[in-house]
Amino acid sequence: MNASGSYDDWRGSGVIETRHSPHFRLQSVPVRSVKMGGGFWRPRMEANVEASIPAQHDLLEEHGVMDNFRRLTGSQQAERLGPLFTDSDLYKWIEAVGFALQSEDLPELQQTVAALADLLASGQGEDGYLSTYFVEEHADQRFQQLEGSHEMYCAGHLMQGAIAYYRATGDQKLLDVACRFADYLDCEFGPDKCAITDGHPEIELALIELYRTTGNKRYLDLAGFLLSQPQSLQNLPPIAERPELVGHCVRSGYVCSGGADYYAETGDERMLANLKRLWDDLIGGKIYITGAVGARYAGEAFGDAYELPNARAYAETCAQIAHFMWGWRMLLITGEARFADVMETIIYNGFLSGVSLAGTEYFYSNPLTANTDAASTHPSAEGGWQRQAWWPCTCCPPNVERTLASLPGHLFTTSAEGIWVHFYDACAAELGLDDGTAVQLQVETAYPWEEDIKITVNPAAGAEFALMLRIPTWAEGAAVLVNGEPAAENPKTGDYLALQRTWQPGDTVELHLPMPVRFTQSHPYVADNHGCVAIQRGPLVYCFEDADNPEVPVRDLHLADDRLTAEHWQAERQPELLGGVTVLRGEGLRPTLSLQDGPLYRPATIRQATSWQRVPVAAIPYHAWANRGESAMRVWVPVLRSTAAS
Amino acid sequence: MNASGSYDDWRGSGVIETRHSPHFRLQSVPVRSVKMGGGFWRPRMEANVEASIPAQHDLLEEHGVMDNFRRLTGSQQAERLGPLFTDSDLYKWIEAVGFALQSEDLPELQQTVAALADLLASGQGEDGYLSTYFVEEHADQRFQQLEGSHEMYCAGHLMQGAIAYYRATGDQKLLDVACRFADYLDCEFGPDKCAITDGHPEIELALIELYRTTGNKRYLDLAGFLLSQPQSLQNLPPIAERPELVGHCVRSGYVCSGGADYYAETGDERMLANLKRLWDDLIGGKIYITGAVGARYAGEAFGDAYELPNARAYAETCAQIAHFMWGWRMLLITGEARFADVMETIIYNGFLSGVSLAGTEYFYSNPLTANTDAASTHPSAEGGWQRQAWWPCTCCPPNVERTLASLPGHLFTTSAEGIWVHFYDACAAELGLDDGTAVQLQVETAYPWEEDIKITVNPAAGAEFALMLRIPTWAEGAAVLVNGEPAAENPKTGDYLALQRTWQPGDTVELHLPMPVRFTQSHPYVADNHGCVAIQRGPLVYCFEDADNPEVPVRDLHLADDRLTAEHWQAERQPELLGGVTVLRGEGLRPTLSLQDGPLYRPATIRQATSWQRVPVAAIPYHAWANRGESAMRVWVPVLRSTAAS
Repeated sequence: MNASGSYDDWRGSGVIETRHSPHFRLQSVPVRSVKMGGGFWRPRMEANVEASIPAQHDLLEEHGVMDNFRRLTGSQQAERLGPLFTDSDLYKWIEAVGFALQSEDLPELQQTVAALADLLASGQGEDGYLSTYFVEEHADQRFQQLEGSHEMYCAGHLMQGAIAYYRATGDQKLLDVACRFADYLDCEFGPDKCAITDGHPEIELALIELYRTTGNKRYLDLAGFLLSQPQSLQNLPPIAERPELVGHCVRSGYVCSGGADYYAETGDERMLANLKRLWDDLIGGKIYITGAVGARYAGEAFGDAYELPNARAYAETCAQIAHFMWGWRMLLITGEARFADVMETIIYNGFLSGVSLAGTEYFYSNPLTANTDAASTHPSAEGGWQRQAWWPCTCCPPNVERTLASLPGHLFTTSAEGIWVHFYDACAAELGLDDGTAVQLQVETAYPWEEDIKITVNPAAGAEFALMLRIPTWAEGAAVLVNGEPAAENPKTGDYLALQRTWQPGDTVELHLPMPVRFTQSHPYVADNHGCVAIQRGPLVYCFEDADNPEVPVRDLHLADDRLTAEHWQAERQPELLGGVTVLRGEGLRPTLSLQDGPLYRPATIRQATSWQRVPVAAIPYHAWANRGESAMRVWVPVLRSTAAS
Repeated sequence: MNASGSYDDWRGSGVIETRHSPHFRLQSVPVRSVKMGGGFWRPRMEANVEASIPAQHDLLEEHGVMDNFRRLTGSQQAERLGPLFTDSDLYKWIEAVGFALQSEDLPELQQTVAALADLLASGQGEDGYLSTYFVEEHADQRFQQLEGSHEMYCAGHLMQGAIAYYRATGDQKLLDVACRFADYLDCEFGPDKCAITDGHPEIELALIELYRTTGNKRYLDLAGFLLSQPQSLQNLPPIAERPELVGHCVRSGYVCSGGADYYAETGDERMLANLKRLWDDLIGGKIYITGAVGARYAGEAFGDAYELPNARAYAETCAQIAHFMWGWRMLLITGEARFADVMETIIYNGFLSGVSLAGTEYFYSNPLTANTDAASTHPSAEGGWQRQAWWPCTCCPPNVERTLASLPGHLFTTSAEGIWVHFYDACAAELGLDDGTAVQLQVETAYPWEEDIKITVNPAAGAEFALMLRIPTWAEGAAVLVNGEPAAENPKTGDYLALQRTWQPGDTVELHLPMPVRFTQSHPYVADNHGCVAIQRGPLVYCFEDADNPEVPVRDLHLADDRLTAEHWQAERQPELLGGVTVLRGEGLRPTLSLQDGPLYRPATIRQATSWQRVPVAAIPYHAWANRGESAMRVWVPVLRSTAAS
């Protein structure tokens, strides 16, 4: 069980254990090695640990999710509650705690998970099977309805939760539960055994991580077998053969992640080539500007290329997370900045919108347009517009929590070249080079609000290596100083800038990433965005919300083409607003008569009869919307020729 | 059973029996009283009787739908096939035959239905219950799952089928089956009995028609009771209280129809007021320009107001039919042309697109944009783009058939004022005035291809009455001659023109309805149509299909604003094309570089870098699309300023 030696070195594992994988170019670093400073993410991570995770625990308890497990041990007789896959909500919550414990001591949470580990161990069958649903009157349905039963999906989340907790504490109890379940699955499923796969992939990446954690190659082989099978529920070809992204987005994101993990272990080039093709399909026509994924409510699915409705964006928070995870694996495999670019878009926009500033409410869907009279636009329709603390299918909240808690493990990697900086936030990191040299990095920045990032490099002693700095695609005109001297001319955007030198303790790097206000249009085939622009600054997508725009209902808002340049807009840091955001102020157009009047269809007039007035408008970061009650919002705004405006 | 006397006068009943209803302003006329001539609809109706109905019979047989009933009588042992509501497919097919038999003798089809009536009578339970699904192992589920069981829905279609067959033949056998079922339902459901309603309304309008047919008021009362209950599956308030159109569109259209029928019998003003409000909601933001209904695949449902995606229009053929039926009832109640206007839009566009020219394939969804690379846009994705002869849920085909067969009964009504002409097509009609005077009308026209309609009025003897001619909303500049002399100045569009006089045998009316090519834009809140126009002529909506436009892929097609006037477009009758259609020819814009290149998101440029060339383009009637293999199609086309074009 300990062939790779990794079982004993739980402190050294990153979000993904990369140290024994032959095909990862980059090595992940432990979550615990990066301490977040007073930057963008720390308040979010504090809210996660102080508000989100405790509140989610209580909600899981309240909704009977723990009691479901207590039924297995006979300590609770109440009826089982929740959807059949709700075990996974607890497992994801355990994973969130596991990552949080990798950053800091949280004795109470640790005790809670330890007790849960006991509960799960007691509830687990002799054979290793564990499910709160497929027992008693459903016992004979075990593995009989895999298309919809989520049994392997839940098992996968159990494995991930167990691994995160193990990497936090070294406590193997839950990991043993996960391994027993994995062993049982390995007995039941395989080439000469049952060949049906779970309708909801997820277990593939979990099995491979369990292999990385334990060294038990049967887990890798089982993952490989499952990946080689058609995806049962949706009748989709195996991911290595799938010609395009179709069907359920979360499932797709997880199975692509599992495929990437499989490549990293096996070097299966056919898998990698197809994953790159699918990534191109994603970026070419199936991802929102916010990094959100999923056009269709029906089937929670990808649309066709360019099918990206704004108000009816499905854009499930979990789908964003699954694609962030896929991107992370592709980045570790290739070291190509294009994957980090998309991860950054996701994490600051379509992911982060999924949770309220307070950390206690969550969106399931993350639309790009919202209208206050849209009674039924969101799945949250019954409860109005607001994010909700709990959903009937409450997969997103613990998924957000585990992702936020794991963030420090994503900022840096190491490689033969040296140290890579993928994402910029204030922090202190204790990293190690391949030769064992310890390097401490101090990052000071108010990114993404501000354009400057200062990195102090402190190797234990002078050491030659490259500091690989990601220059985001949007950062035209980036500049770098090392110890106050220009260190690179016109660094290429959408790539890593390699600062190769012998670094001495106290060396400083000053990176300047210009953040002019940018105006973006989409491919003309995106019907919803025809004639519209979106506003961006740095990695952030902005939106207009009624709350900030008393002069014009955002549903009527247009922009004048003569104001679509950075100099017409001011970026204004507002520490009191929405936890402290940078607001963009400029001029919009308001129709003198509300657009809402008039018939659904009317004769086309060549010139608009409506006249337009220029009015001051303000845009906020998209991720911060819907934190002030119901307020119409839009990301994409139609543009008028300036000649139309008075 | 024969209190109203109508049971014996089956020859005199229209599509709806209006003669005993106190609150219908207009009286429907029997289908048999109108013989279609060589106009627009006759080839469609011939295809219906000669191809659609026979083919559908064979498909129903092939898919086991008749065998399902034979199982009830023990004459067939095979497994029951099809969805639990598939009984209704046969019932709708019987209704289609019933209407067809009201127009002409079809002895073979009549024998087939007579034999089916025997089969159904034999299969019916002692208690009157009839279902091929809720028997044997499902027998104990009878009425236990009404939210999804469609038991009453199927019963309603049985009633409608039985009524249509009875009105064709006077044969009461099937009607008796329907009445026995209705009597049983009346014993089981009501204020002091079971109060759950079927999740899929339909039975309400059927019960009321059964009341009109038999005079048994308990059927009306049961319908009234069901209408007064919340709609079970969707948790919607009763239709008289529903604040807006939400949820499943077909269910909504049927329950609104039932509500209108209930008003016609009872004068329930609260019902009528709310139906008018809901109609305004439909017309104000929830109906496509084609008359199609239903924005969302998820739930086959209405969207929010202005949520009308083109490529992902749900627009189920059945929804168009349900709203045609609702419109017919509103028209009969009010005599207001606005209802007939919408019925005409539906029937020539979003309904008729539902069936192929050959009459043997059907669309379930009727999108307004189709792209050839859209593998999964349609529910028909597995079979490619084409209409299909049979669907897993094959509700639309027999619904199309019954609607086409009933069409002659919709052209005219009578009233105290005289004779109303709602829809124009070549035909001969034998009508009767309130005082018993027989009036023969001869209509000669190539409407909607041509602008002129000639009506010869032949009362048995000179008679004073009004001929009420509908002047469609689009028919600005309409002109009317009676016996060659101008008879009305500037008749009001969207209204009925009353030609009141003493009509003599042989009097002629010449109606001219100008059909310039029209360019229509939609409300600015319809995101998909921003900056676009649709082209219309007369009651027809046009579309561009790749097949007619070799110069430009329709996905790239734009129109120049300086060509959006009628004089720039030629209407050209092409008898050989698509069964004979009028094509509209004009100029479009083609980008010199295909729009398909380039990234999903790019910097917004104030001036388009693409240049545009003027190219000849041709539009065909929307209803005729997709009859020549896979070919991209669009109704709404973006407009560019002419200064952009070379």
